[in-house]
Amino acid sequence: MPDSAILLIHCPDRKGIVAAVADFICRHNGNILHADQHQDASLGLFFMRVEWDLGGFDLDLADFAAEFEAIAREFRMRWRLERSSARPKAAIFVSRHDHCLADLLYRHRSGELACHVSLVISNHPDASDLAGFYRVPFHHVPVEPGNREAAEEEQLRLLDAHGIDLVVLARYMQVLSPAFVARYPQRIINVHHSFLPAFSGPRPYHRAFERGVKLIGATSHYVTNDLDEGPIIEQDVVRVSHRDQLEDMVQKGRDLEKVVLARAVRWHALHRILVYANKTVVFD
Amino acid sequence: MPDSAILLIHCPDRKGIVAAVADFICRHNGNILHADQHQDASLGLFFMRVEWDLGGFDLDLADFAAEFEAIAREFRMRWRLERSSARPKAAIFVSRHDHCLADLLYRHRSGELACHVSLVISNHPDASDLAGFYRVPFHHVPVEPGNREAAEEEQLRLLDAHGIDLVVLARYMQVLSPAFVARYPQRIINVHHSFLPAFSGPRPYHRAFERGVKLIGATSHYVTNDLDEGPIIEQDVVRVSHRDQLEDMVQKGRDLEKVVLARAVRWHALHRILVYANKTVVFD
Amino acid sequence: MPDSAILLIHCPDRKGIVAAVADFICRHNGNILHADQHQDASLGLFFMRVEWDLGGFDLDLADFAAEFEAIAREFRMRWRLERSSARPKAAIFVSRHDHCLADLLYRHRSGELACHVSLVISNHPDASDLAGFYRVPFHHVPVEPGNREAAEEEQLRLLDAHGIDLVVLARYMQVLSPAFVARYPQRIINVHHSFLPAFSGPRPYHRAFERGVKLIGATSHYVTNDLDEGPIIEQDVVRVSHRDQLEDMVQKGRDLEKVVLARAVRWHALHRILVYANKTVVFD
Amino acid sequence: MPDSAILLIHCPDRKGIVAAVADFICRHNGNILHADQHQDASLGLFFMRVEWDLGGFDLDLADFAAEFEAIAREFRMRWRLERSSARPKAAIFVSRHDHCLADLLYRHRSGELACHVSLVISNHPDASDLAGFYRVPFHHVPVEPGNREAAEEEQLRLLDAHGIDLVVLARYMQVLSPAFVARYPQRIINVHHSFLPAFSGPRPYHRAFERGVKLIGATSHYVTNDLDEGPIIEQDVVRVSHRDQLEDMVQKGRDLEKVVLARAVRWHALHRILVYANKTVVFD
Repeated sequence: MPDSAILLIHCPDRKGIVAAVADFICRHNGNILHADQHQDASLGLFFMRVEWDLGGFDLDLADFAAEFEAIAREFRMRWRLERSSARPKAAIFVSRHDHCLADLLYRHRSGELACHVSLVISNHPDASDLAGFYRVPFHHVPVEPGNREAAEEEQLRLLDAHGIDLVVLARYMQVLSPAFVARYPQRIINVHHSFLPAFSGPRPYHRAFERGVKLIGATSHYVTNDLDEGPIIEQDVVRVSHRDQLEDMVQKGRDLEKVVLARAVRWHALHRILVYANKTVVFD
Repeated sequence: MPDSAILLIHCPDRKGIVAAVADFICRHNGNILHADQHQDASLGLFFMRVEWDLGGFDLDLADFAAEFEAIAREFRMRWRLERSSARPKAAIFVSRHDHCLADLLYRHRSGELACHVSLVISNHPDASDLAGFYRVPFHHVPVEPGNREAAEEEQLRLLDAHGIDLVVLARYMQVLSPAFVARYPQRIINVHHSFLPAFSGPRPYHRAFERGVKLIGATSHYVTNDLDEGPIIEQDVVRVSHRDQLEDMVQKGRDLEKVVLARAVRWHALHRILVYANKTVVFD
Repeated sequence: MPDSAILLIHCPDRKGIVAAVADFICRHNGNILHADQHQDASLGLFFMRVEWDLGGFDLDLADFAAEFEAIAREFRMRWRLERSSARPKAAIFVSRHDHCLADLLYRHRSGELACHVSLVISNHPDASDLAGFYRVPFHHVPVEPGNREAAEEEQLRLLDAHGIDLVVLARYMQVLSPAFVARYPQRIINVHHSFLPAFSGPRPYHRAFERGVKLIGATSHYVTNDLDEGPIIEQDVVRVSHRDQLEDMVQKGRDLEKVVLARAVRWHALHRILVYANKTVVFD
Repeated sequence: MPDSAILLIHCPDRKGIVAAVADFICRHNGNILHADQHQDASLGLFFMRVEWDLGGFDLDLADFAAEFEAIAREFRMRWRLERSSARPKAAIFVSRHDHCLADLLYRHRSGELACHVSLVISNHPDASDLAGFYRVPFHHVPVEPGNREAAEEEQLRLLDAHGIDLVVLARYMQVLSPAFVARYPQRIINVHHSFLPAFSGPRPYHRAFERGVKLIGATSHYVTNDLDEGPIIEQDVVRVSHRDQLEDMVQKGRDLEKVVLARAVRWHALHRILVYANKTVVFD
């Protein structure tokens, strides 16, 4: 893995953007590893992700903003620069169902997630052993009716203390307050156990079973203040039939939840996701 | 293909049903080709489909009801008997989008649909050539604001005249009246261009595009008086990404619509579907 | 979960089998929970799986064989009787790649596998911690060139000591001897990291990458003496593109390996698989 | 649809390629609509597809080669320039199974294929009506043992006469000679009714049925002189079970064949495919 820089750009579409960016990197002797762009024709928007090898790149990243400013201003860009060697720090929130947690911790250990899992927070003590086995600090923060505010304060304190960049809700069954969400814009990923927008809200498997659908799904998305309405990152489905009882759906669904959440975390950590208009661009 | 009888049963679950039915067929020297059953444990219901070869079966099907009555009464069965050699007669309704129609007509010619397509009815004249090529009678029945009732009368007259058993709405964009639907209970199959219950109602691709979903779908279902709420027969999905514009979704979706509708028609024609509690049991 | 009996039957196809079996169960006051059958028309074979509730069944299972003998002889059946409450005991064999092991152990703990994992055996010591965390005995049995025979003796001794019914090769990279395989006919399940019969043998991901396929797969199958040629139980695939480097394929493939192996183990443990003609019937 | 130019590039990977190409287009006032690139790290190769709007582009495409030459030489590029308004002309070859032909002709009429179907050639007369209905010239060129050479001469004459750019083998069951293949390098697309490399060669469904696979597939690929060994463009699969007899597999497979072939033709016509090392890069 070379040490690389990743530039994410979002601006009105017009001529010359690719040329300007590529020329800038080239002038500083950067070797482009990946470049991908997207246009939303109806909104007239341009999106770009470009990644280049920092070996030989002759501009200190600390000076990047100053040097790049002229281009950014000319094209009215919103942009950010990331570095592949600076792995994001993630906290995983979980309630009783720990299949996504177990899955993420295993993937973390095998290096697949592209981020560092620094912390597990749960409103139940059950997952303590699992976190311990994978040597990730575990904090039990009970959430009772009436103490949500205090619980969130404690959670935020822990996130601050660990310098967390990304919050992963791995079947965490508590709704976060707008104040909490506002602290981590586009940095909280949730998994919902249905194919959104179908069966948003509670008990999606029960409702899927009652409706008699022939496929069930799972969705990972960024959390906003509209429950289950945030930008969708990934979805997957599996076939069911009349033979599948509710508990079969729950079991089949678990495998979907695990993969759609793990993919979302990995893509986020690789800085491959751009959000706009309540949608995601996932560069691949 | 042997000439076979198909018995579909629906009753409260209790001991001895399979034995009673299998023994009845056996006593009359029938060779069971397929037998499948299903229990809905939560509702305490039992469903069965049994198909046997009529070669050697020593009971005239005209006498079946009288002979089977004792068993049916004992187990409080709702049942029906079908014969594989009596292929259902289908009418296809279509509006401007004719991809499902073209697909169904081709499958009909190749013998895949297991029914006889006797009639194409459209509120536009466009599909006349296509129907003509496949030698299926075509009727143009315009539907204008204000004449829906008269149009439905004409449609029903045509269905009666052709002895139609099954109405297939192959992207037919008119809503049928409750009176029409009541004439063909569980005998009208529609295709909806979304993964129901997501995006029920109009313009599902537009709304899927706006919501930024990562999979789009199509659903075939029996028509009831609740729009897009009837028992689901089949669903399928295909992956989309931010690169897919609305027109790409429409195009990808067409391939889904074709297969989910064709499968539903075939399964219906093979008498493999039982409906209960607004769901389907699809025996395979 | 009621305590139930499962009867698996395999015989030449002829009239009256379903009736005879259903009547037998009915006469002894058994309530059939599931019944499924299959015919292989080209080979003239009949297969059946029937499961009934033992509550109220008036025949002691110890006397079943004697009572059922007349029917079995008449129809020339090969049959076996299983009991859902007697969960099979499984041993998992693993080498260095432990993702399938971790997955199976988690599913075991959550009760999903329908069997008891009694033992983990590895030719490397690495998985000891993981097995320990899930409280499953772990045995390190090194396999070196020249000591395979001794290693297998030790493995077989362990299997005997634990009364193992099923051996699961969860990415175990050693080939078992014919003598070993003969001890567990249709009781050894392997996962191969390709879509068999494509890329049988070593390094399937390398060869898939070189061939430029657009989907990669994984296969679970019973082990026979023909490497990768045993009866296939389950397969699944995932889409890849030119963007996927070899390591991406390996990573995507791991998720397939886990699910196809877990499904195979579960179905085997639920006595849902019948083997004939080097194929499987998987009742559902 | 704007009139656009598409530049496809293939060269050794090094710094500055994207910048040079983007700058070239920008200097001539071209607005880039899509740009995508790919690196094969192991082979040190770079691939690029860039498409720009010709409205406002101030270089006549007739002069493009002369102007672009310096860049192409510097980076040792193999490149070609296409124009979206110049739709490729395709000939479809078919034998008795006409499902892919019917599917392609319908898609052609609806504008989905992005090419012009100029010609249908068959070794049987059966498809004449179908071609006629879609108003595509049909030629019956019988192929008998002993006359293959003459038949190919006649086929090549027809292809020349119609200025054909792309040959689509839509279940054409004759093997083309090396001389024929050499005339249309990377311009002949075939569909094989299996998931290659599994079941290459004849009767793939029969062999899939015998092997007892749980998924069947179809593959579209460029034709080379190694039968079924050419660069794979697209593959798809569908689930089968023990209940699927050979004829069910054939029927399910037809739907796969149609979609993998149609996608390949469309992507080829949109100049989205680059071939190297017997693989394809399919830009999306």
